[in-house]
Amino acid sequence: MIKVGIVGATGYTGVELLRLLAGHPQAEVTVITSRSEKGRPVADLYPNLRGIVDLAFSTPDVDELANCDVVFFATPHGVAQSMVADILARGVKVIDLSADFRIRDADLWESWYGQPHSARDLIPQAVYGLPEVNREAIKGANLIACPGCYPTSVQLGFLPLLEADCIDSTDLIANSASGVSGAGRQASIGTLHSEMSDSFKAYAASGHRHQPEIVQGLGDIAAGNSDAGEINLTFVPHLLPINRGIHTTLYANLTKEVDVQALFEQRYQDEPFVDVLPAGSHPETRSVRGSNMCRIAVFRPGGGNKVVVLVVEDNLTKGASGQGIQCMNIIFGLPENSGLTAPALLP
Amino acid sequence: MIKVGIVGATGYTGVELLRLLAGHPQAEVTVITSRSEKGRPVADLYPNLRGIVDLAFSTPDVDELANCDVVFFATPHGVAQSMVADILARGVKVIDLSADFRIRDADLWESWYGQPHSARDLIPQAVYGLPEVNREAIKGANLIACPGCYPTSVQLGFLPLLEADCIDSTDLIANSASGVSGAGRQASIGTLHSEMSDSFKAYAASGHRHQPEIVQGLGDIAAGNSDAGEINLTFVPHLLPINRGIHTTLYANLTKEVDVQALFEQRYQDEPFVDVLPAGSHPETRSVRGSNMCRIAVFRPGGGNKVVVLVVEDNLTKGASGQGIQCMNIIFGLPENSGLTAPALLP
Amino acid sequence: MIKVGIVGATGYTGVELLRLLAGHPQAEVTVITSRSEKGRPVADLYPNLRGIVDLAFSTPDVDELANCDVVFFATPHGVAQSMVADILARGVKVIDLSADFRIRDADLWESWYGQPHSARDLIPQAVYGLPEVNREAIKGANLIACPGCYPTSVQLGFLPLLEADCIDSTDLIANSASGVSGAGRQASIGTLHSEMSDSFKAYAASGHRHQPEIVQGLGDIAAGNSDAGEINLTFVPHLLPINRGIHTTLYANLTKEVDVQALFEQRYQDEPFVDVLPAGSHPETRSVRGSNMCRIAVFRPGGGNKVVVLVVEDNLTKGASGQGIQCMNIIFGLPENSGLTAPALLP
Amino acid sequence: MIKVGIVGATGYTGVELLRLLAGHPQAEVTVITSRSEKGRPVADLYPNLRGIVDLAFSTPDVDELANCDVVFFATPHGVAQSMVADILARGVKVIDLSADFRIRDADLWESWYGQPHSARDLIPQAVYGLPEVNREAIKGANLIACPGCYPTSVQLGFLPLLEADCIDSTDLIANSASGVSGAGRQASIGTLHSEMSDSFKAYAASGHRHQPEIVQGLGDIAAGNSDAGEINLTFVPHLLPINRGIHTTLYANLTKEVDVQALFEQRYQDEPFVDVLPAGSHPETRSVRGSNMCRIAVFRPGGGNKVVVLVVEDNLTKGASGQGIQCMNIIFGLPENSGLTAPALLP
Repeated sequence: MIKVGIVGATGYTGVELLRLLAGHPQAEVTVITSRSEKGRPVADLYPNLRGIVDLAFSTPDVDELANCDVVFFATPHGVAQSMVADILARGVKVIDLSADFRIRDADLWESWYGQPHSARDLIPQAVYGLPEVNREAIKGANLIACPGCYPTSVQLGFLPLLEADCIDSTDLIANSASGVSGAGRQASIGTLHSEMSDSFKAYAASGHRHQPEIVQGLGDIAAGNSDAGEINLTFVPHLLPINRGIHTTLYANLTKEVDVQALFEQRYQDEPFVDVLPAGSHPETRSVRGSNMCRIAVFRPGGGNKVVVLVVEDNLTKGASGQGIQCMNIIFGLPENSGLTAPALLP
Repeated sequence: MIKVGIVGATGYTGVELLRLLAGHPQAEVTVITSRSEKGRPVADLYPNLRGIVDLAFSTPDVDELANCDVVFFATPHGVAQSMVADILARGVKVIDLSADFRIRDADLWESWYGQPHSARDLIPQAVYGLPEVNREAIKGANLIACPGCYPTSVQLGFLPLLEADCIDSTDLIANSASGVSGAGRQASIGTLHSEMSDSFKAYAASGHRHQPEIVQGLGDIAAGNSDAGEINLTFVPHLLPINRGIHTTLYANLTKEVDVQALFEQRYQDEPFVDVLPAGSHPETRSVRGSNMCRIAVFRPGGGNKVVVLVVEDNLTKGASGQGIQCMNIIFGLPENSGLTAPALLP
Repeated sequence: MIKVGIVGATGYTGVELLRLLAGHPQAEVTVITSRSEKGRPVADLYPNLRGIVDLAFSTPDVDELANCDVVFFATPHGVAQSMVADILARGVKVIDLSADFRIRDADLWESWYGQPHSARDLIPQAVYGLPEVNREAIKGANLIACPGCYPTSVQLGFLPLLEADCIDSTDLIANSASGVSGAGRQASIGTLHSEMSDSFKAYAASGHRHQPEIVQGLGDIAAGNSDAGEINLTFVPHLLPINRGIHTTLYANLTKEVDVQALFEQRYQDEPFVDVLPAGSHPETRSVRGSNMCRIAVFRPGGGNKVVVLVVEDNLTKGASGQGIQCMNIIFGLPENSGLTAPALLP
Repeated sequence: MIKVGIVGATGYTGVELLRLLAGHPQAEVTVITSRSEKGRPVADLYPNLRGIVDLAFSTPDVDELANCDVVFFATPHGVAQSMVADILARGVKVIDLSADFRIRDADLWESWYGQPHSARDLIPQAVYGLPEVNREAIKGANLIACPGCYPTSVQLGFLPLLEADCIDSTDLIANSASGVSGAGRQASIGTLHSEMSDSFKAYAASGHRHQPEIVQGLGDIAAGNSDAGEINLTFVPHLLPINRGIHTTLYANLTKEVDVQALFEQRYQDEPFVDVLPAGSHPETRSVRGSNMCRIAVFRPGGGNKVVVLVVEDNLTKGASGQGIQCMNIIFGLPENSGLTAPALLP
């Protein structure tokens, strides 16, 4: 059994790791850390885990984490970068669910996150954990930078079109909507039930921290294309009054005639966690609730040259913890879907 | 007091008319009709109106409706066109909340609605009831075609930009999301609570009935512009797990340099029901819940030439019944905000 | 126009006062205070009030409040008791929406609220602001202790039965459920959307602060009854994933044969804000959303001696701010329903 | 592998069976039937099962069902009674999730369900499938009458108290609240999202079909007690705006002094699917979302003789399909928790 440690397991991506790993046949969680909840049984905080997870939170300790085969960071940005070097030095794999190692340009990272990056030297060895793009590199990685929730949906939606070099990459639009769990489990007025429920709004329309990550990822995919992979993206996130789920609606202009349905089906036919729906279908976020699946539909409204891609994923699963486990499975040579086979919860 | 009749008052736009008119100082509802609920007190169906509306539903009868000064149709499409001629002939004004008279091209209407139009001769006299565009024509109208809920939000969002001829009207995108009440009050599996709640999806991505209405409206606004008002619109509606509210996110490319914030503020400074938010704000649907107000914010992400407009309205109020009352006020020379001054319900 | 001041207007009962008073024909808000939001326009915090309320928050100041005819406290417990004496001394009426003056026994108050009461001498002059019980006393009151949200629903539900001395007051059960807005607008993990939505739970089953207030109120109503008004109440509150609304289900044993439907209808026939539904009806919280109405239904399941009373109210309106305005209307000799006539928002 | 057939798999209990059995290591679904959806792939109707369940619906056929080891009926009442005899005759076990065989008194059944019972002779051999009460009988059963969702929660909550003969069984109260999925997947105005969301109400307060089933079950448990097991129950169900979950709040009067916390812990210490929470805890429905677990807390408010029991379960899982699978596991000698070990989905 692979021994798993989780740093920062009090948040929603932490409990999602615990939920998913509870059913993983080849992995077991042996350490979970939280400074604020030290000594408290996790099942006391998350009653869904009563009788399933017997661990208590401990203070993060490198010696203890060094007994693990892999350590997940389910922490806010800034934490992983301060601890990862010591853990890697002990020969332990690290899968970071936070934003710390996603952006290769450290200056760009610092400008968006408003703080110095304290582990710049580790950035080059971090592998971006999007299996549909980077599966081979993930196999040998020691440090995984797990993609953000929005970026996963945007990249998987544009991927076949950019690889086929059939859209104008200088005018891309991503209109995304996320469930509130994406905002994390911190006391805040803005995400109170009374502020969010029965309402909907956009936010960060002038610029969101996931923008540079998405642009970097799309650029990588498009590298070598006719327009040399120049990416111009307008990204507007919105906040949905639901628990889990991201729905992204993508818009682009086709630059050559292509059967988009066939293109998507072929590109993803061997991917275990990308499901291309039959033509004319519309994916619902609930169809992936609690699942690592990403479902995609593609349209050309009125048969014109505008292509519309609809993508759904669970922001906590394929958008975070599930994707991290998918990476772990790849790293350790396990079946890629180990622990990730349960159907979405519907209704 | 203006005597008001409502045909088809069992649906959500019908009850919204009753709710709003209950507080109107110069109008009173004297007739409400429903074939299916004949004889039943409206307060029996809508308990929020107990003690406030004492009327019972009656079978639609032209003689009875002829005693009204104005008759609202809150019916599915196809009903108004079969009754309006007789009512107009009796000198009664008609405000149709349905789609029957919104599209000037009857063939186009028939192709989208899949049935013959039975009052083609009346279409030319119908005035499109969007006061921000058509206030003068509304004053003298006998037959108002009240705009659809999505079309109102899209038109009000693009209006200042199209009038200023500063966007490329051949590449417009409207990404809209509506509360479930927009789907009406019919027994249906697809809009059950268990199918809609805690989920989100797009629908009709290949083409929605509001598309031709929006294109016609935007074309009217843009007529005379440099590109002769040619409109190419991609419109994708989505379904939100909320009761009321539409949020529309618009995307367009600027064709000339303009201060978009100032443009919107100036265009709407005298409009009683369009509120341009301060720069950087994001409107929430709950800020217009139950109100006739439309709130708009405008962005240029990253300072580029993409303009993003965020529009919220209550689909039952500014998107239907409130707008109808606004038209009624204009027709009868009342203060335009009569009966429409109550703040939105928040939280 | 009656000049109204509001202390602590940033919370949900504060904004509800502003929303309701915006439509009050004989009152206007002239001062709103908040230490934390000093100088900020209220419409900046509550966008539903944009264009309707032009005031900005100011620091609470007795001289400024003394210019008002009446001051509402929409503050957490403990605040009103520290300021009320000075305001009353200036001849200004006070309506306290908090718990500070509801309980006559100061020792009991201190034991439930865990702090000393700093205005014990004022408690005797406070009038409990439940118009259905205390209308005459309210007329001459200088200091109103507005009932809690749960206590209003429980008292109005048991009132006809206790007055008729036909239930065993030593075995009363109140099973209540409240919308999340009842928990206020404070940053807190427990009331995050992600913690509350799509879920339901009881809380404080071992004892809730509203218990002594309810028992006191029921005791007052039952005073003089055969069992000398001894009250034994089991009260279990629950938290609903909705914005507004309280639903209380009451259980009691009949001690004499009585037509409960007729009893309720007769008791409340002249009450403007209590609506007894026809036999067999079940009230919904949405039927009072945003309204000051309380709707009640009464059952004897299987025709036995157990009486079940169903009560709904909006916790922010009849359960707080609306009831406060109702008291204000009574004090100043205005029509009792001034500013409180709008129908509930449905759907 | 046990071969499983499901009759009526289009409803919510049907899809829940499919979801749970997809992860069952010793069972596989081989036949699913639906007259209305004949030929349609189940994954077309339930996209969460795409790539997981490849079956299509077929018309119910006894010969085909006879190839199964066990057949579940996930049908409205009245269907199972018309088909079960033929299936049993072929040596196939039957687990009926509907109400057809729950009530031993066929006349009583007919009076509540308003139709004749067409398989009266089979009623005596039906075993009531509540493992916590009937585990031994279930082992040898051919026909299981799976308990209703409300009855499961009420019986498990009262069970330790009735077995200990320490409450007055002639004055029991069950105040229950269910998610909307309990109302099934039929087109209906009353359960539309626009009718249910952001609201709460009681229903069937004068009498609900689950009442006689509960009374029968409680009577069986209490048989032999001091008061000879006479049961007098007041049961009031409510409708919650959530997808899944039942919360039941029980009230009873203690007749002898007992440590209720210890009583519950001891009674359920060996039960795999009943979790007694630590004293002072309040169970949330989300803590069992999608899980077969039932969580219970017990209180004596104020230390008096009123005992309050809080019970949560997922109405589709422990309240229906999960419990059916638990019975199947018992019948076939499998580990009782096979296929039922996944944690609840939280958040």
